[in-house]
Order: sequence, then structure tokens, then C-alpha cells
Amino acid sequence: MSNLTSREIHLVARPDGLPAAADFKLVEQQLAPAKDDIVVRNLYMSVDPAMRPALSNGQMKLDAVMTGGAVGVVTQSANTDYAEGSYVIHRSGFREYHISDGSDLRLIEPRGEPLTTHLHVLGGTGLTAYGGLLVTGALQEGENLFVSAAAGAVGSVVCQIGKIKNCRVAGSCGSQEKVDHLLNDLGIDYAFNYKTQSIAKELHIGLPDGIDVYFENVGGAHLDAACGQMRPLGRIPVCGMISAYNNKGARSEGVTTLSNMIYNRVTMRGFVVYEFENIREQFLYDMRTWMAEGRMKYSETIKSGIEAAPEALIGLLQGENTGKMLVQLADA
Amino acid sequence: MSNLTSREIHLVARPDGLPAAADFKLVEQQLAPAKDDIVVRNLYMSVDPAMRPALSNGQMKLDAVMTGGAVGVVTQSANTDYAEGSYVIHRSGFREYHISDGSDLRLIEPRGEPLTTHLHVLGGTGLTAYGGLLVTGALQEGENLFVSAAAGAVGSVVCQIGKIKNCRVAGSCGSQEKVDHLLNDLGIDYAFNYKTQSIAKELHIGLPDGIDVYFENVGGAHLDAACGQMRPLGRIPVCGMISAYNNKGARSEGVTTLSNMIYNRVTMRGFVVYEFENIREQFLYDMRTWMAEGRMKYSETIKSGIEAAPEALIGLLQGENTGKMLVQLADA
Repeated sequence: MSNLTSREIHLVARPDGLPAAADFKLVEQQLAPAKDDIVVRNLYMSVDPAMRPALSNGQMKLDAVMTGGAVGVVTQSANTDYAEGSYVIHRSGFREYHISDGSDLRLIEPRGEPLTTHLHVLGGTGLTAYGGLLVTGALQEGENLFVSAAAGAVGSVVCQIGKIKNCRVAGSCGSQEKVDHLLNDLGIDYAFNYKTQSIAKELHIGLPDGIDVYFENVGGAHLDAACGQMRPLGRIPVCGMISAYNNKGARSEGVTTLSNMIYNRVTMRGFVVYEFENIREQFLYDMRTWMAEGRMKYSETIKSGIEAAPEALIGLLQGENTGKMLVQLADA
Repeated sequence: MSNLTSREIHLVARPDGLPAAADFKLVEQQLAPAKDDIVVRNLYMSVDPAMRPALSNGQMKLDAVMTGGAVGVVTQSANTDYAEGSYVIHRSGFREYHISDGSDLRLIEPRGEPLTTHLHVLGGTGLTAYGGLLVTGALQEGENLFVSAAAGAVGSVVCQIGKIKNCRVAGSCGSQEKVDHLLNDLGIDYAFNYKTQSIAKELHIGLPDGIDVYFENVGGAHLDAACGQMRPLGRIPVCGMISAYNNKGARSEGVTTLSNMIYNRVTMRGFVVYEFENIREQFLYDMRTWMAEGRMKYSETIKSGIEAAPEALIGLLQGENTGKMLVQLADA
């Protein structure tokens, strides 16, 4: 294959607080894949809250191409596991082309669903929600579930699994539009805008019997309010704390209600999606079933072109997305 | 049996902040035990940090006798399970005599150890430390253990079990005298006075590789410092948060470092001693073995007479004890 021009996004400054456009740079690379290389043309890339701490903690290197989930199509391959024309998912987003020896690729076999769903409801986002809620959170039928950032990519899957499990579900979000989406589209029982309401008061109204599982995406004031209302043997699976990510040392607002964990024997546990690799097949089966039954809906906010990746990330950290934030890098 | 005069302590006002002597009242009761009643003359009673929240949350009733662990000797009984002269433990402390139908008594069979040890190292205090550290905390050989309130009744048992399990143990306490006790008498690896030192800096020095298990007795600033230094898959068994007990709503100082739980997949869990009833026999066997080997030491601070019970509780909440705080109610 001849030389390729691939544009990619480099991190050029570590942000202090909210990232700015100047922290990123669009760089054009000339790639010369060898005959044995697998060449992937990236179609869509994922933009995730967890990218924010990676900008500060050294996980993302300075003056190097950034990384993140992406789906693409194989355009050159001598590897029969990844034939030309097949779809793959990998962690080398933030670039138009990815050159691989195959070891970092996972094959996607779509069964009618859009390719993009493998970057959210059928991908890491969905598995994060499914594993975090059902394994780490050990949600039981009929319990009281609170979800923060409920209209986000993970939160909206968590909310819907909660309803599928016949739970009473309350969710917080940052706008009236998202409140309406949670109530009308996702069918949860109670939703409120944390920017205009008291979280503690809303939780008393929405879940008057207290909280069995708090699926934690936000931290700080959200955790302060929720932890004080946990029921005996309650669980707080900690998926993320987006409120802290823009702060120095990832510090959240102070949480003062943790003593409620003692007599109520509450468990709080951080988790990471790779802990759930062993249940991926069950996850895919359940999610496809629920999607076919119309019980698992999703939204996407799609920006266009590799040059839009920084603004997509900055927008995500300001909560401008409903559902999954994606960047389309090429036509499928 | 003829009538008995028993003096007892009533709670007459719910304290706001540190309890004061005026919140308690010494009351003299005339008891007229029936023929079938078991009469217990209380010998020693326990004073515990957990009594503080009970003063505020309604667990202790107003204008009624207070409750708490006590050991006594049976002075009247028609029940062969609790013959006259046998020793029993129960939850009706804060009074000189306890009248029972037997259902709330547990027999103590001392094997040479002082009776008082059944109110701490061989009683609820010891079982709290043993179960919280080994079951909830799942401490493994050779791990890095941090214990707050390390010179307290629970903390000093936790520290010694940590050393028995070949762990590196660091402890915090509130005076140089306690630092010396922890290092010289209990043989832990590092100890510091949190009132004069930076907790975070001391932890970096004392446990430079980070913390596998933080046995939490204090909350607030202690948790804020420790949580930021937890290692992957670390555990925080939450036994108590004494720093919060004198505050309205049992609120602690704000904890801002909880986001460290996420990628390190840290578990924090509140526990209560009654969860460990099923391991009481193993606990007694291990503790008696360790005591006989000289590897499990204890200290007692003993006040004298029922009238001293309020000051013992107030003193405990100010940290004036080393080891277990007790009140002797009668000569054994």
C-alpha cells in the first residue's frame, strides 16, 4: 500500500482546570505501512469523561498522539482474523488511520445495529454501566436506585437497566431538557436539575425510602447528599467523579456524610470496566435483547472530523452532550 | 431477695457538640426483683466512642437509664444456665444492678484472664478489631496497614494483629505519650501525633509504598489524607468516625480525595461488630493464644464508681484514655 496521510490530535499542554483548544494540536502524519501491517481507517471515535484525568496524570503523553476508543474498517491486511473490510474496535482514536499488528484489535460483528453502538451501549460504556450496576453495585429487583449524570452515556444505560430490573430510579442531570429526556424518553421515576435544585431535598422527594444503590458518576456535592440517605447494606459503585476531574489533584468538593456508612454498613467501591471482561458475552446478549425489545434506548452527539475532537472533549466536560459524545472521522 | 438500691445514669439532655456533665443525672432506684428474676451485680462497665452518636440519634432515650456493655456477677438466680456466682456480660451498663430474665445475658468463662478483658480485647472491642481488620478489611500477610486512633481500645488491637500478620503498620494518635506507647509497647513501625503533624506527610514517610488497608476510626482529615494514598485494590473498613460524632448530623470535615478510589478500585465499607458473631470462637481462640504468647497487650483507664461514668464518657471523647476506658462499679 502506498503512503497515507493521517491527521491526528496531540496533547501539547497539560490543562489546569477545564481544557482549552490551545492544549491540543492537529498534526498531519505521513504513514508508510509495511506489507504485514494491518491498516485501519477509523470511522468513529469515542470521547469519554475519563480522558480528563488522563490529560493530567501522565497517562496521555505530551506532544504525542492521544488515545481513546475507536471503531474502524480494515483497509489493508494479510491477517485472516482481520480481513479487509471487517470492522474492528481498538484504543487508538484521535487519528484518522491506525496501523496495527493485530494484537490491539477486537473484531466487531454487527447484527444490524449501527456501528457507533459498539462505542457506547454495546461497547465499553455499556459494559461499564452493566458491570458497575449489576456486579459492583449488586442491584436487586425492586430496589431504590439513584444515578448521577443520569443523562450521560453511562448514566442513561444505568437508568434503563434499573427500570428493566423493576427498580425505582431517580436521576440527576444539568438541564431541564435532560430532565425531560430522562422522564419521557427513558421512563425513570424521578429526575431533577442539580444546578437549580437542592440534591438532598430532591432525593428525599424522589426516593423517600432512601437509596439502596447510588451509581456514582459525579462525586462532591452529589455524594455528600446521597451518602447521607443510603439505606442499610446500601452500595455505592464509583464509576467516576466528573466534578473533580478539572480540579488540581482530582479533588472533589468535601464529602461530610460518610459516617452514615457505618451503622448502615454501606459499601463504596471504585471499579474499572476491564474487571468485567469475563461477562462481556452475557452483557452483549442482554443488551441486544433489550434493544430489540425497545427497552434500551440511546442518544448520540456526533461531531464531524478529526479537527473537532478537542471541542468534543471540552464540550463533554461542560455537559453539552445528551448521551454518547462521538466524533465521526470518515464515512462508513 | 429483699429490695435493692441501685444507682444509675440517666440521659437528661441531648448534647450539641461535646457532652457536658449536666446532660447526665445520677438517679437512685429501688429494685424489687421477683423470685424468677436473675439479679446481676455489675462489676465493670464499658465506655465506647459509639455511645456519642447514640446520645443524639435517639438510640439512648431521654430521661431513662443509659445502656452499654457491662460484666457482672450473678447474685440471685433460679436459672441453672446462670448460677449464682457466675460471671455474665450484657448491654445494661450505666447502673449498679441489672435484673434479667436471662435472654440478654452471655456467660463468661475466664481462663485466668482478668474479667475486664471481656469488655475489651476478649469482648466487643476485640471482636470489632479482629473482624473489621481480617473480614471486612481482608488484611493479607505483609501488607501496609494504617490505623487511626491507633492507641484507642480498638486501634491498639488492630495494630497488634497487623504486626502478628507481618504487616508494616503506621498509626496516628493525639499525644507524644501515645506515640511512645505505640512504638515502644505495641511495636508498630511508625506512629505520629496528628495534632502537631501533617497526616498526609506522615503517611508518605511511614508507608512510602502506599496503604493497602486503612482501618478507619476517625474520618474527616484522616480519611482525606489516607484515601489519597490508597494502593490498587485497597480496603477501608470503616469502624467509626469519632471526629464527626460531636458535630450536628455526624458530619465530618470534608473528604476531597475519594476519586482515588476509582482507578485503584478501592473498597470502603462500614461494619458493625454483630456481623462477626459467627467467628467469635475463632476470635477467642486466636486472641487467648496471642495474649499467652505476649503478642497482644492492652491498657486500661479505669474510673471508679457509677457517678464517674459521665466524666469517663466525656474524657473518652476528648482522647484522654490510653486503651480501654472502663468504670468499676463494684469490687469483683
